[in-house]
Amino acid sequence: MPEKIPCVLTMGEPAGIGGELSLKTWALKRHELEPFFVLDDPIRLRNIASSLGLDVEISEITDPAQALSEFSNALPVMPLSQSVNSTPGLPSVETAPAVLESIARAVEYTQSGRAKALITNPIQKETLYDAGFIFPGHTEYLADLVGGGMQPVMMLASPSLRVVPLTVHVPLRVALDQLSTNLIVEHGLLVIAALKRDFAIEHPRLAVAGLNPHAGEGGKLGGEDLSIIAPAIAILQKTGAKVFGPVPPDALFTPRARDGYDAALCMYHDQALIPIKALDFDRAVNVTLGLPIVRTSPDHGTALDIASKGIADPSSLVCAIKMAIDISNSRLLKAAA
Amino acid sequence: MPEKIPCVLTMGEPAGIGGELSLKTWALKRHELEPFFVLDDPIRLRNIASSLGLDVEISEITDPAQALSEFSNALPVMPLSQSVNSTPGLPSVETAPAVLESIARAVEYTQSGRAKALITNPIQKETLYDAGFIFPGHTEYLADLVGGGMQPVMMLASPSLRVVPLTVHVPLRVALDQLSTNLIVEHGLLVIAALKRDFAIEHPRLAVAGLNPHAGEGGKLGGEDLSIIAPAIAILQKTGAKVFGPVPPDALFTPRARDGYDAALCMYHDQALIPIKALDFDRAVNVTLGLPIVRTSPDHGTALDIASKGIADPSSLVCAIKMAIDISNSRLLKAAA
Repeated sequence: MPEKIPCVLTMGEPAGIGGELSLKTWALKRHELEPFFVLDDPIRLRNIASSLGLDVEISEITDPAQALSEFSNALPVMPLSQSVNSTPGLPSVETAPAVLESIARAVEYTQSGRAKALITNPIQKETLYDAGFIFPGHTEYLADLVGGGMQPVMMLASPSLRVVPLTVHVPLRVALDQLSTNLIVEHGLLVIAALKRDFAIEHPRLAVAGLNPHAGEGGKLGGEDLSIIAPAIAILQKTGAKVFGPVPPDALFTPRARDGYDAALCMYHDQALIPIKALDFDRAVNVTLGLPIVRTSPDHGTALDIASKGIADPSSLVCAIKMAIDISNSRLLKAAA
Repeated sequence: MPEKIPCVLTMGEPAGIGGELSLKTWALKRHELEPFFVLDDPIRLRNIASSLGLDVEISEITDPAQALSEFSNALPVMPLSQSVNSTPGLPSVETAPAVLESIARAVEYTQSGRAKALITNPIQKETLYDAGFIFPGHTEYLADLVGGGMQPVMMLASPSLRVVPLTVHVPLRVALDQLSTNLIVEHGLLVIAALKRDFAIEHPRLAVAGLNPHAGEGGKLGGEDLSIIAPAIAILQKTGAKVFGPVPPDALFTPRARDGYDAALCMYHDQALIPIKALDFDRAVNVTLGLPIVRTSPDHGTALDIASKGIADPSSLVCAIKMAIDISNSRLLKAAA
């Protein structure tokens, strides 16, 4: 049995709901979770706890290992190099360096093995851009910090479903232009490997969605299903994995269909995100595939409109921490085998 | 109180599950439904009932009104002008004239007021094409039979959700090319009118979906949300109806979002069909808007692969009959007001 290591949570955008979520997660669910610590300003978190009437002790720590002994009595918080003052609902460029420091140090701890896994609270990209942030998103920044030139891939996972979109933040027309046999094969291989390594599924079953209505109905409703997607499936099948499709997109997410696969590879952002958010909005977790470290995050944004109102729901963050722990344990078992 | 009138069901593709569904619906759910009759071959239905061990009496009728007195004791069936012999799972051009006769006569009865509403069992278009059928689908054939040049629009309705896709059976790229402010306004007006007249909602709330991820994120992820969809919403709002959007597509179908509208206008086929089939596969009903007669159908196909096995689930047909009755009653109340 390896020695126990805590997970690390980032602060996220301090004008959003991240602080409230970290506090509520410890207050309500610590008995269900392995120890974690937060890279955040302890005074800020104490103020939020007090203003929301949350009964949370804060324990300032200087080393991740301290989180293990503190966790049952207090939320372990490791301070940043600056204090963080922010107005709920109003992100400011002033706090951008602290947001980035929290992420960078969390990556360092995870990469060096002093944290078991990284769970990120949501950030507000616009504010970071004003402070010189140059990445299209959170995940790309993480990949850059980790190094090695990996192309991270987003999976959303919930109790009902695991989905992976081929492309993410591009216009739908661009997503159609970028669709290629290669892109599907690359993503398919990565997803199959992740299902084995991270989700402990020995013989993964991968469903590949069609692009057009009815998956093109034999070419009558669009050619991509036959000319681009089917060849990729044939290539993926040669690896011996159970891969099937192109499945008519609207048939892919019925309860009966969901029983038939471990993950669905989707041809564009909303083909993946519509069904999982419809079915499991509060329990969907964003998992980054293709990185050497384990990283998850809740599947929601900074929710500036409800910041500091005490009504933010920590369910998705709780699910993200649980999933990060499960994935880490699955990797440890694989490595030990 | 208007005099009682029965609903009419069509035969649908005789090699599919339509006959089994009509029989099971009567056998299992007649006590929950107003009287209906089927335009089908009585001998064929008797044979299916006997081979599947369904305890269903068949009563041959020659006039729709006879269905009212017969319904509690037997399934009323009005014969077609030819007998129908078919092999389960194997559609044949031989039976195409009977399939079309069943639809045409059902439309006649509904249009002349001798049937209250029309519920269609699924058909196999390919077989009908071989027999000279020239319409892109069932709904277009009905619109032609009804006359008046109306453009019918498909709504899918279930306990969780009502959705209307702007375009249906075209490739996704063509759906993007066909997207226009006019098309959205036309569909929006029709849906608002239908929510009032057919669903008895006095002040309908219409959500309009965005096209791109995050509804384009202010233009960064695609321009159509701002340039095409937003202007249509502004025009629709001028009618006084509550219309809002463009809503990020993946946010539109969460439980909380669904509480905020009576119908969602969707920018393409799968944006509408993915969420409703994920949430309510067995209870989704296809409702044709824009016709003077009431027409619904179950939201599934002919299911040739399970024809005559006794495992077909009549839930969607039962929901379709109930919804047809509700819509007819709503229209009668409106007309009487």
